[in-house]
Amino acid sequence: MKKLINRPEDVVREALAGIALAHAGRLVVHTDPHWIARADAPVAGKVAIVSGGGSGHEPLHGGFVGPGMLDAACPGEVFTSPTPDQMLAATQAVDGGAGTLHIVKNYTGDVMNFEMAADLARDEGLTVEQVVIDDDVAVKDSLYTAGRRGVGATVLAEKICGAAAEEGRPLAEVAGLCRTVNERSRSMGVALTSCTTPMAGKPTFDLGEDEIEVGVGIHGEPGRERRPQATARELVDTLAGAVVEDLPFTSGDKVLAFVNGMGGTPLMELYVVYAELHRFLEERGVEIARNLVGSYMTALDMAGCSITLLRLDDELTRLWDAPVDTPGLRWGA
Amino acid sequence: MKKLINRPEDVVREALAGIALAHAGRLVVHTDPHWIARADAPVAGKVAIVSGGGSGHEPLHGGFVGPGMLDAACPGEVFTSPTPDQMLAATQAVDGGAGTLHIVKNYTGDVMNFEMAADLARDEGLTVEQVVIDDDVAVKDSLYTAGRRGVGATVLAEKICGAAAEEGRPLAEVAGLCRTVNERSRSMGVALTSCTTPMAGKPTFDLGEDEIEVGVGIHGEPGRERRPQATARELVDTLAGAVVEDLPFTSGDKVLAFVNGMGGTPLMELYVVYAELHRFLEERGVEIARNLVGSYMTALDMAGCSITLLRLDDELTRLWDAPVDTPGLRWGA
Repeated sequence: MKKLINRPEDVVREALAGIALAHAGRLVVHTDPHWIARADAPVAGKVAIVSGGGSGHEPLHGGFVGPGMLDAACPGEVFTSPTPDQMLAATQAVDGGAGTLHIVKNYTGDVMNFEMAADLARDEGLTVEQVVIDDDVAVKDSLYTAGRRGVGATVLAEKICGAAAEEGRPLAEVAGLCRTVNERSRSMGVALTSCTTPMAGKPTFDLGEDEIEVGVGIHGEPGRERRPQATARELVDTLAGAVVEDLPFTSGDKVLAFVNGMGGTPLMELYVVYAELHRFLEERGVEIARNLVGSYMTALDMAGCSITLLRLDDELTRLWDAPVDTPGLRWGA
Repeated sequence: MKKLINRPEDVVREALAGIALAHAGRLVVHTDPHWIARADAPVAGKVAIVSGGGSGHEPLHGGFVGPGMLDAACPGEVFTSPTPDQMLAATQAVDGGAGTLHIVKNYTGDVMNFEMAADLARDEGLTVEQVVIDDDVAVKDSLYTAGRRGVGATVLAEKICGAAAEEGRPLAEVAGLCRTVNERSRSMGVALTSCTTPMAGKPTFDLGEDEIEVGVGIHGEPGRERRPQATARELVDTLAGAVVEDLPFTSGDKVLAFVNGMGGTPLMELYVVYAELHRFLEERGVEIARNLVGSYMTALDMAGCSITLLRLDDELTRLWDAPVDTPGLRWGA
């Protein structure tokens, strides 16, 4: 294992120290327990949005904290769910009196710990709603998941709900939008290489010189099939094919197309994939109205990508376009 | 070799097609010859800024085209200089009557071809100034370079000169600022793995299981030494030590600290490096006034990072903070 780290057991703490130093004045990083909040939280009268999960997926979630997106994120150890005390403390810190939405990726530990945190927060008199994201069409159940895994749609839900909260929408509406984004989104990924967690020090799974894992999870969980290496065109046909069939996305749909790098794949290749995805959708009469191309939800150093499609409507499009000011996503009005 | 591509010989063309589709309305991608320009170019009365170089370093340079940064970028084949006809055509397309600045990384082919393009442009009656960036302290001469290589300072120069041009400053001043940025910047990088060009299909250089290349170039050129793997702290001491000694940066300096990922290194590790860099500089009385952490000048899939420091003054800081709206760097006023 070669990584830019010190001791494997210190990686998360030290990366959070780097985030705190790099984004001082915009983000606050709390230790013991760990959570990251926007510097101006709590914002009085605004619905607060909290997410979190294991580390190793940066910029998700901490890099999406800021005006127009998350109020707080709770980072666990690498590929390990954060603990209920983290979510509770973060919720208490950012709740502005209008309630808090927890956006939870569908992994057993995350769901369980977020539920416990919500119960504890309600005991403290706080109002909490939770929405579980489960957009990955690859497999029904998985290594750490009952049901489908939560992947790329999480980024889209955090952005769209963040914009709605910023507009002053009430908790029920913001949570409803989160469910809508999840219902209208589908994703699938592929790994060209495994990832290596710092503590394990060796690849999470073995993949032959010419093999790829189609439908891989963001922790290296098995997908649908292991197959020989393929071209970008063939891979897009497979990934986007599974995504499109599942919802289904059909002719006349307008979508947000998100090509996400897994951490070890350079941007140049993601643009090749995006060009193929555009071709694939155009052939089916599906129009890409918005797009996002880059490494936003990673799996440490895994080479590969995922494709997420969200069927847009006018409201979702408007909320996607709204200003956002976070380290990971940033644009103006 | 496992990459998200189709035929190796089509990678650059197809990635540019993806860029054109993803950023339609903001960027124009011209083919035959290849150049990328901001959609509103030429901007009358504004100094135009053109850069370029081999592909494989994305988002550099094409991802930095847009208001507040470059007017055009000329992508060559992977790790191959663009041709003079590309720079000439781009210059003709974006010159707004106030002259054009070419920002050139110091590689023999780039320098030669940009010089030819400038001569051709002057023959057409255009005014062109050129500034060569050579901020890499690792080695005196290198595989493709006489003198020092141009690396991370290029990103900073493109941003700062772009802001100055946007303010309406004349060509001589914008070029002068570019020289100032280069004079006040120093960089050094490290590779944990080689990169693999699509056409070669195998790693550019061999590195043992536990070896790293200190002072590596962005095309995999040899650095100062090959040594056993080290901690993030030791690597920062080595890289930042060489950078700080060279200018030198001394107590009381305010700097922009840029931790750049080489393409195969996840963001989490870059933040560990940033925390170490902050510690290193604080010990020496050097204050980080601005920072940039991410993969902005890559070497395909190479794992590793580089550190760039720029000694700031009030004007450089103000120009760094000015709004920018490109796919790769984006922030408001």
